[in-house]
Amino acid sequence: MADYRLHCFAQSGNAYKVALTLSLAGLDWEPVAVDYFSGETRGADWRGGVNAMGEVPVLEHAGRRLTQSGAILTYLARRSGQFGPIDEDEELEILRWILFDNHKFTSYFATHRFLFSLAGKPADPAVLSFLRARTDAALGVAEAHLAAHDFIVGDRPTIADISLAGYMFYPIAETGYDLAASHPAIHAWRERIAAMPGWKPPYDMMPVAQAANT
Amino acid sequence: MADYRLHCFAQSGNAYKVALTLSLAGLDWEPVAVDYFSGETRGADWRGGVNAMGEVPVLEHAGRRLTQSGAILTYLARRSGQFGPIDEDEELEILRWILFDNHKFTSYFATHRFLFSLAGKPADPAVLSFLRARTDAALGVAEAHLAAHDFIVGDRPTIADISLAGYMFYPIAETGYDLAASHPAIHAWRERIAAMPGWKPPYDMMPVAQAANT
Repeated sequence: MADYRLHCFAQSGNAYKVALTLSLAGLDWEPVAVDYFSGETRGADWRGGVNAMGEVPVLEHAGRRLTQSGAILTYLARRSGQFGPIDEDEELEILRWILFDNHKFTSYFATHRFLFSLAGKPADPAVLSFLRARTDAALGVAEAHLAAHDFIVGDRPTIADISLAGYMFYPIAETGYDLAASHPAIHAWRERIAAMPGWKPPYDMMPVAQAANT
Repeated sequence: MADYRLHCFAQSGNAYKVALTLSLAGLDWEPVAVDYFSGETRGADWRGGVNAMGEVPVLEHAGRRLTQSGAILTYLARRSGQFGPIDEDEELEILRWILFDNHKFTSYFATHRFLFSLAGKPADPAVLSFLRARTDAALGVAEAHLAAHDFIVGDRPTIADISLAGYMFYPIAETGYDLAASHPAIHAWRERIAAMPGWKPPYDMMPVAQAANT
C-alpha cells in the first residue's frame, strides 16, 4: 500500500490540487476511486464514515484522515518540505491566496463549470450568468496579479499556485473558458506549472468518474 | 492610535469576524470606516493601495497590512495566545473548518443575504433560489456537527467558531433565515458565543455603511 491514499475522481479539481501536490513533491501515493456522480459522497456512509462535509478529496496518511484541499496542501508542504512558506509573512500570504481561491476563485469557476457541462441537465441561464460574472471578477484579480508576478507568492511555485491552478487544466468545452485567449497572464502561469517535473493533467492522474450525462 | 486598526463596515460579516476576535481577545483596536456601497473597495485606489482583492476586512498592525479574514484570525490567535489550536491536529482541523466556511458556509449565506436584502435592487428569483439551496446544504453540515459538539473544534471556542459565526448575528429581515426556528443547534451555539465577555452584535461594533437601498 502506498504511503498516501487519495480518495478522488478526475473531474474534481479540488482532488487534483492534492494529486498534483503529491506528484510534484515526488511522494508515494495512490488514488482510490470515488463514484461521485452516483451520489457516493452525499450518502450517509460517506458523511458518517469518511467526510461529514460530504466532499472529496480525502487523504489518508499515517493513520490520519484529512479533508479540505487547503488543509491537505498545508500538511503536505510540511511533510515533504516542498512548496511551503519560508517564514510567517509568506505563510500568511499563502493562506490569504488559498482562502481567496476557496472563497471566490475555485468556488465560482468550479460551480460554473459544473452547471455548464457536468450536472447532466441544462442550467438556468440566470444562474449561469450570475456565476460567470462572479468567475470573471475572480479571474480578473488573478490575471492582474500574475501579469506582475511569475508565481502567486514569492518567486517560486508554492501550494498557493497549486490551489489556484486546480481547475485551470480542464478542457474549454467543460469550463466554458478559453483562458489562453481571454487571460494571457493566467495562461502563461499555468504553462509554467505544467512545465514542472511530475506534472500531468487531471484526467491522466486520477480515475474518471462516470458522469451523469454520459 | 490603537495597536490594531480595522478597515471595516458593520454590514460585512467578514469584517465582523475580525472585530469580534479583537474584542473577545481584549486587544486594543479601532475601526476605520469603509464606504462600501459607494464602491470604495472596488476602485483603483483601494485595489492599488489597500487590497488588490477588492475586499474588506483589512487589518493594520505593527507595519503589517493583512487581508482575508481567515488569515487575519490565524494571525490574531497567535499574537493574542487565544482561540488558537493546541497542537497540529487541532490546527489542521481549525483550518479545515475555516476553509469550509470560506468555500461554502459564509460564502453562500452572505451572498444570498446580499442579494436578498442589500444589493439595492430585486434579485433574480432563480439566482436567489440557487443560493438558498446551497446555503441550506452548508447550514445542514454545521447543524449536524453542532448537534453533537458545543464548539466547532475541541471543547472551547476557537477562531473556527468565530469565522463560522460571522454572519449568524444579522437580523432575520436581512438574512432571510430564522435560525432559532430552523437550526436549533446552530442557534444554541451562537448563543454560547454571544455569552462570551466582549461580545457585541455587528451593528454595535463597527461603523454602518450607507446602504444602496436606504
